Amino acid sequence: MLIVQKFGGSSVANAERVRHVAGIIADTYAEGHDVVVALSAQGDTTDELIEKAREINPRPSKREMDVLLSTGEQQSVALMSMALEAIGLPVVSLTGWQIGMETNATYGAARIIRVSTERLRRELDKRRIVIVAGIDRNEDITTLGRGGSDTTAVAIAAVLHADKCQIYTDVEGVYTADPRKVQGARKLNEITYDEMLELASLGAQVLMNRSVELAKRYGVVIEVLSSYVRKPGTKVKEVAKKMEEMKISGIAKDNDVARVAVVGVPDTPGMAFRVFNAMARAKINVDIILQSYGKAGTNDISFTVPIGDAEAAAAALEDVQEAIGFDHISVDTNVCKVSIVGAGMMSASGIAALMFEALYDAKINIQMISTSEIKVSVLIDKAYADQAVQAIHNRFFG
Amino acid sequence: MLIVQKFGGSSVANAERVRHVAGIIADTYAEGHDVVVALSAQGDTTDELIEKAREINPRPSKREMDVLLSTGEQQSVALMSMALEAIGLPVVSLTGWQIGMETNATYGAARIIRVSTERLRRELDKRRIVIVAGIDRNEDITTLGRGGSDTTAVAIAAVLHADKCQIYTDVEGVYTADPRKVQGARKLNEITYDEMLELASLGAQVLMNRSVELAKRYGVVIEVLSSYVRKPGTKVKEVAKKMEEMKISGIAKDNDVARVAVVGVPDTPGMAFRVFNAMARAKINVDIILQSYGKAGTNDISFTVPIGDAEAAAAALEDVQEAIGFDHISVDTNVCKVSIVGAGMMSASGIAALMFEALYDAKINIQMISTSEIKVSVLIDKAYADQAVQAIHNRFFG
Repeated sequence: MLIVQKFGGSSVANAERVRHVAGIIADTYAEGHDVVVALSAQGDTTDELIEKAREINPRPSKREMDVLLSTGEQQSVALMSMALEAIGLPVVSLTGWQIGMETNATYGAARIIRVSTERLRRELDKRRIVIVAGIDRNEDITTLGRGGSDTTAVAIAAVLHADKCQIYTDVEGVYTADPRKVQGARKLNEITYDEMLELASLGAQVLMNRSVELAKRYGVVIEVLSSYVRKPGTKVKEVAKKMEEMKISGIAKDNDVARVAVVGVPDTPGMAFRVFNAMARAKINVDIILQSYGKAGTNDISFTVPIGDAEAAAAALEDVQEAIGFDHISVDTNVCKVSIVGAGMMSASGIAALMFEALYDAKINIQMISTSEIKVSVLIDKAYADQAVQAIHNRFFG
Repeated sequence: MLIVQKFGGSSVANAERVRHVAGIIADTYAEGHDVVVALSAQGDTTDELIEKAREINPRPSKREMDVLLSTGEQQSVALMSMALEAIGLPVVSLTGWQIGMETNATYGAARIIRVSTERLRRELDKRRIVIVAGIDRNEDITTLGRGGSDTTAVAIAAVLHADKCQIYTDVEGVYTADPRKVQGARKLNEITYDEMLELASLGAQVLMNRSVELAKRYGVVIEVLSSYVRKPGTKVKEVAKKMEEMKISGIAKDNDVARVAVVGVPDTPGMAFRVFNAMARAKINVDIILQSYGKAGTNDISFTVPIGDAEAAAAALEDVQEAIGFDHISVDTNVCKVSIVGAGMMSASGIAALMFEALYDAKINIQMISTSEIKVSVLIDKAYADQAVQAIHNRFFG
């Protein structure tokens, strides 16, 4: 078999961890498999490099930041190769330049745009373990620094038609909720790409969206598992088998959200358009939207934005206050979005009701609601976020 | 003009130094010149990376060590680019892969073996400052890590026919002796390539030999100067103008030397051949050689080797002790080689005599002597090394 393995920053944080991971790779190789390994930068390296850059230039170009941050992954692949050399295994590290592969970054449409598998194949034919550094030379900073090696692993698995793509991390798989915070959180054996995408975008932070999108597009089955304990993890695939009683796959909370309320909008046609047109021009993504009747023939329009965009949203609206003629704006950053995710949940009746009931019983007020084919999200007071997740989890998995 | 500038590790050790060097580059650019900059890794980065590698594998392959160490230079070029961006200058960093240039490493015959100036020219035509990382992807560790950026600078100056090649360092130029240790040491305005090569190989450590060899081969005039003070440094070129009274260019000492004495070698033909054949087979470089009459029709053959090879030299000789029939071997590591260097010194009579007289007056015993066209070396007790250099310096420059 051809197996692609990816290990995150904490898995290679120091010499001891590097040797441990080398042991996992060596065992896979000893079983007779071809092995390609993608690595993140060690531990806090990326943060340290960002800090070094900030000292010199608070707003460096993405290009030079990329040149800087890619050194972290390059150090990881060199050190891992040395660890494998130390136990006598044939190994070669390859940088992004050498494997010449790129993916694009368009949200919702990640694609492999350039491929050169010739070098990878040549090394594998020599029965060498191949350790690769990130591929996205033109990627934006966050993705390159923090999710680049996931994407590398999936892209390589896709172009080499690998039999397995294992993403090793510091958790044992994908859980029904954050196991550090929710009692009774369970590890899932399988989850669909779409569910994983919803959970990732909702703040579950196990896999980067782009790598899941790539995997979905190219049919790569990902296994998320722990580099600390040797047991099966969670498989991410097109169709997932569920345990009988499981109506949803997971619960996620997202604190990166603020609620903007435009109060006293005249009840005439085109007002909502003007509000959201102002957001679009300011390049601000709007998520949940609620329009409600206010007093004296006016409407209130509320919506959520990423917390970092809240100020910009308010400023953009103030620019059009006179044109629209609304009364005032209020911004609330003390909110949190809690969501349940499950493929085909809408075909099973009563799922949303079960969630609302759990919150009602816990005396938690719902401010806004949004639903899609595979998720239900509610906006609540940030202070009750953990309590809400636990209450919903108990209702579905208790 | 097209000016190539190189800054060493201490010149870019931290954010403050990086900004300072960015100022030097910016001033050069502001004068209307095209500027290409080569950089070393920051401060102790190379040593730290070597230590990281050793923790994982005491004997890593050169290939992976290269992958690891090249990240140090890459970080430097990214950070310097950011510093220049911060003051609003157009700049681009290029790695070894992107400029695609290599030199070979054969001692005494350094050559540029691969060149691609197309990318460099293209960036310069856009009036961008170009910051380049080391070029020697196949180079051995020490050279890549410690002298690679000198060589990069000289090679780029050669292929671009640069008007100047400035090597910025933490000293103000090339001195008649180490200014930290010798009173009255003077900075030279000019020195020839050959003199510089002798001084470098004798431990003056201002420029790596390979970069001087490249400069000589391609006629690149190097200027060695300080990144701390803004004044002219020392020019290294084919023919150097000397100050009237200067008979030699400099004095150097080399502690990396051990004396091996083969005592009681039978006085029959071919014995010296056998001794040095044993050294050649063990790949040990022999420097000064002295053959003297011992007692009872035997000879003593003494020679110097790098201190790290002393044990191996003794072992190799023991293997042939029976065949040669010598009495015993003695190894002395408490020695030091002190040399005076000057182009054409042999045509001026009495130079060597002046050196010997200075040592005699200082009551320092000479163990061995070696001369060439442009240098005279003596081997003395290591304890008197600094005293010897000062005494010789006083005699020639006092």
